[in-house]
Amino acid sequence: MKIAVLGTGMVGRAVADRLSALGHDVVMGTRDVEQTLARTEPDRRGDVPVAQWQRTHPAVRLASFADAAAYGEVVVNATPGALSLSALEAAGAANLAGKVLLDIAMPLDRSQGMPPTLTVANTGSLAEQIQRTYPAARVVKSLNTMLADTMVDPSRIPGRHNVFVAGEDADAKETVRSLLRGFGWPDEAIIDLGGIRGARGAEMYGALLFAVWAALGTFDFNIAIVRK
Amino acid sequence: MKIAVLGTGMVGRAVADRLSALGHDVVMGTRDVEQTLARTEPDRRGDVPVAQWQRTHPAVRLASFADAAAYGEVVVNATPGALSLSALEAAGAANLAGKVLLDIAMPLDRSQGMPPTLTVANTGSLAEQIQRTYPAARVVKSLNTMLADTMVDPSRIPGRHNVFVAGEDADAKETVRSLLRGFGWPDEAIIDLGGIRGARGAEMYGALLFAVWAALGTFDFNIAIVRK
Repeated sequence: MKIAVLGTGMVGRAVADRLSALGHDVVMGTRDVEQTLARTEPDRRGDVPVAQWQRTHPAVRLASFADAAAYGEVVVNATPGALSLSALEAAGAANLAGKVLLDIAMPLDRSQGMPPTLTVANTGSLAEQIQRTYPAARVVKSLNTMLADTMVDPSRIPGRHNVFVAGEDADAKETVRSLLRGFGWPDEAIIDLGGIRGARGAEMYGALLFAVWAALGTFDFNIAIVRK
Repeated sequence: MKIAVLGTGMVGRAVADRLSALGHDVVMGTRDVEQTLARTEPDRRGDVPVAQWQRTHPAVRLASFADAAAYGEVVVNATPGALSLSALEAAGAANLAGKVLLDIAMPLDRSQGMPPTLTVANTGSLAEQIQRTYPAARVVKSLNTMLADTMVDPSRIPGRHNVFVAGEDADAKETVRSLLRGFGWPDEAIIDLGGIRGARGAEMYGALLFAVWAALGTFDFNIAIVRK
């Protein structure tokens, strides 16, 4: 499948790398290709510059948000949540119309330091904002509840644990479930939270995610829903 | 220990019953004792009237919020979150000063139907509001992330799963941990989210709790933090 991954940070790279390794035709979207490739310093998180990353991942092409979105049959939003609406505006409504838009972003407001708050919560969510702004896109929220490495390789966390999907379009959710199965998620580990409003639950869990990170000193965990 | 449980609903009853069975001296607080005992109809959830419940739990006395709080060495806030600040006002600052105030309430706003939103989230939490309003109380948030039956008997959910504590006072948290161990929580299942701000994580998880409830059709689950 032709897949556009918007965002060149840790999350975008992990997803693009894995999708490419699974045989998909992956293009990575960024705001300004030249500027992105010109960076020579590690980013804020210490990840290597994109140009250097790309040399070890030649199958993943780099393109503008708009060109990437136009090319992809599925578009993955892996941009920082606080910048996602702006990135999608650059991608263009026409390039998103009718597409499965897999939103894996966390709407983090890092302006007040750690732990972050959310840019939207409780009475709304980023995924709902995206669906409202792009009514012709078929938005599915998923994967935002864990570390990027875990998203694309759940087996690195032992035992049963879960991933969530939320969205209005059943076919779009099935497409996402199939991508998740490709990443290694057993079908029974995928919990369908219903319509796009279910994204609030997945996004607001972010507050607990960061609190547990502070407690354990690592993001190397995931949650399991344990039933009676 | 002398323990005041504020709130006579499902959560208050479950906690009062269990604490009493464990040998604690439990008084249950309500806004108006006469009015509470006069009710003859099942409540909104279908629970039997308090007077009827009390006949099968004679060891648990009923008192006003103020009398209960004055009596308890530990005070448990098991009132509905949207009413908790008002209930604690009735309990009285002097009766809470110096006490461990175990806040197990969820700040649910049910005014717009199901699923509820929260009355406070993201940049604050009910537990933080309580701590700020009663600076001399030693507030600990815990147990609000699950069904009442599970709070007081974690063994009903199989396998490993977790409970959180958050609060500023280390001794108060140790008192709460000891109550949790009494309920059957293994010490390693108790995750310390740090200061009272950690309560945001536990409370905001409420959005995911209700989304999973909608997905599974039951609250009979809990979350486990699964580490790499």
